Amino acid sequence: MKIVVGIDIGGTKTKLGLVCKKGLTHIETSFPTTDYPLIDDFIKHLSKTISDLLNDKFELLGIGIGAPNASSKNGTIENAANLKWKGVVEVVEKLNVYFDIPIKIMNDASAAALGEKIFGSAKEMDDFITITLGTGLGGGIVANGKLIDGFDGFAGELGHIDITLGDGRLTGLGVKGGLEAYVSVTGIKRTVYHMLCKYTEASILREYSYKELDGETIYKAALDGDFIAQKTYNYTGKVLGGALANFVAFTQPEAIFLTGGLLKSGVLLLEPTRKHLEKNLLQVYKGKVKLLESGLTDRNPAVLGAASLIWNEN
Amino acid sequence: MKIVVGIDIGGTKTKLGLVCKKGLTHIETSFPTTDYPLIDDFIKHLSKTISDLLNDKFELLGIGIGAPNASSKNGTIENAANLKWKGVVEVVEKLNVYFDIPIKIMNDASAAALGEKIFGSAKEMDDFITITLGTGLGGGIVANGKLIDGFDGFAGELGHIDITLGDGRLTGLGVKGGLEAYVSVTGIKRTVYHMLCKYTEASILREYSYKELDGETIYKAALDGDFIAQKTYNYTGKVLGGALANFVAFTQPEAIFLTGGLLKSGVLLLEPTRKHLEKNLLQVYKGKVKLLESGLTDRNPAVLGAASLIWNEN
Repeated sequence: MKIVVGIDIGGTKTKLGLVCKKGLTHIETSFPTTDYPLIDDFIKHLSKTISDLLNDKFELLGIGIGAPNASSKNGTIENAANLKWKGVVEVVEKLNVYFDIPIKIMNDASAAALGEKIFGSAKEMDDFITITLGTGLGGGIVANGKLIDGFDGFAGELGHIDITLGDGRLTGLGVKGGLEAYVSVTGIKRTVYHMLCKYTEASILREYSYKELDGETIYKAALDGDFIAQKTYNYTGKVLGGALANFVAFTQPEAIFLTGGLLKSGVLLLEPTRKHLEKNLLQVYKGKVKLLESGLTDRNPAVLGAASLIWNEN
Repeated sequence: MKIVVGIDIGGTKTKLGLVCKKGLTHIETSFPTTDYPLIDDFIKHLSKTISDLLNDKFELLGIGIGAPNASSKNGTIENAANLKWKGVVEVVEKLNVYFDIPIKIMNDASAAALGEKIFGSAKEMDDFITITLGTGLGGGIVANGKLIDGFDGFAGELGHIDITLGDGRLTGLGVKGGLEAYVSVTGIKRTVYHMLCKYTEASILREYSYKELDGETIYKAALDGDFIAQKTYNYTGKVLGGALANFVAFTQPEAIFLTGGLLKSGVLLLEPTRKHLEKNLLQVYKGKVKLLESGLTDRNPAVLGAASLIWNEN
């Protein structure tokens, strides 16, 4: 069986899987990225892990990698804030020493968009945007049926778009008012503290330190009707809906797909987001843009997205 | 000689010219758009004007039209705020009654971007953005070598992107904090009044009513060292530079081209814009994005852009 290795390099974990043309993941595994602070050790361990997954049944076509701050055009990861390898890391070149086959790398959010096009719910769409909502916020943009890479492969850094005229919360990359400081697992936590400051209502969330508080706790509080938690989701949806309306004015997508950890909150986030997206759309766009959950949510979107870099050309 | 008619439908004037493959305008003329409040009268007069331009020397390949709120996919102008024809106007269909040849229409700012690619300074570029700064602000986006139309041809409405988290100046289309309320001929005039309110310094601009004040007056005052006028240009450049840095995070263009009436102010606008663009770029983009004046500035960018819709396919 022809097979592609899909690899998702995250700040905490590196996940990999063998993905067939139908978009099924046949074998998968993972290991802690943080165990390998030196890139050469990481590549060596990654190569061994890949070799261990393979057997005679599989004909390996190529390796696709999704990673933060990856440049598809340079084959590199460059100055990623949440990885230990600093500067410009020649990932493709280093892995090619072990595997003399096609290897491609791409920003993880762009890979998720390509995965949606190849394996997910965007197969018939030429214009759409995928937003990944995890620790940060990433974007992948497809227009005219093709993923937008940009001049040297760094398009789609939508988490670092300033939405406040330079007067808002700082992102990890120092952008004032950057979208991901509001809309992400980290952003929603920051919003809780904004609401705890603004309102005086009782809330279970007043019992948690900033360090202790996590997304799961906010989610459960909102389900229990907690005033602060509900305000927080509504505000997050309002900011996201407004930002998405801006994105529509850019490339006019047919659909916007949402994916990532924050989506576990379901309608708590989706309902206010949809309301504020539609409210903020220019007249000419109203009623034309679908807001959807990724069609890959039940599978492994990051690994499938990574594998789609190779399947896209086979 | 093979020729294309390029037409620029503006709120005040309709300009048209015969454009050859080299991007030279051989004959041009114009008439007041406002003389024809009924679309059928307008199309009839436009047809006669085109016929009058043509003679045996020319072989007509097609007609390209740039207009506000035009949909390239539908062949229509839809709900344009500054035109008298309301609702959805089937421009291509109506003009095809008079000329049975290829006729294409596109948003004027997108047409300017295509013109830059076909006739101007972007011939070798696959990823760039054109910003037109006139009464409003328009955008045309090229990625992967192709203009982005969007789902039904309305991509690039960059003047109506909210840059203030829903808390700023209203645009003509009701967008709170929309970019063109800050950066356009109208926007710069509004900023003068913000500065007159904020500061107490003497200024020649204190002698003009809102109705009287025009761009030329603000420009001359700034050249004369007027405090308010200079503050106004610096603020406009700051807002534009910040917005362009956001746009870079979207499609990562190799260059951003500026065109339109506001560019007459030259370095007064360009210098602060360039400074704040570079300052606000994410690290990964720094030093990679050129801010340029359109290469068509000395010619007729709108007519050439319109003609490029046909020359693009011939």
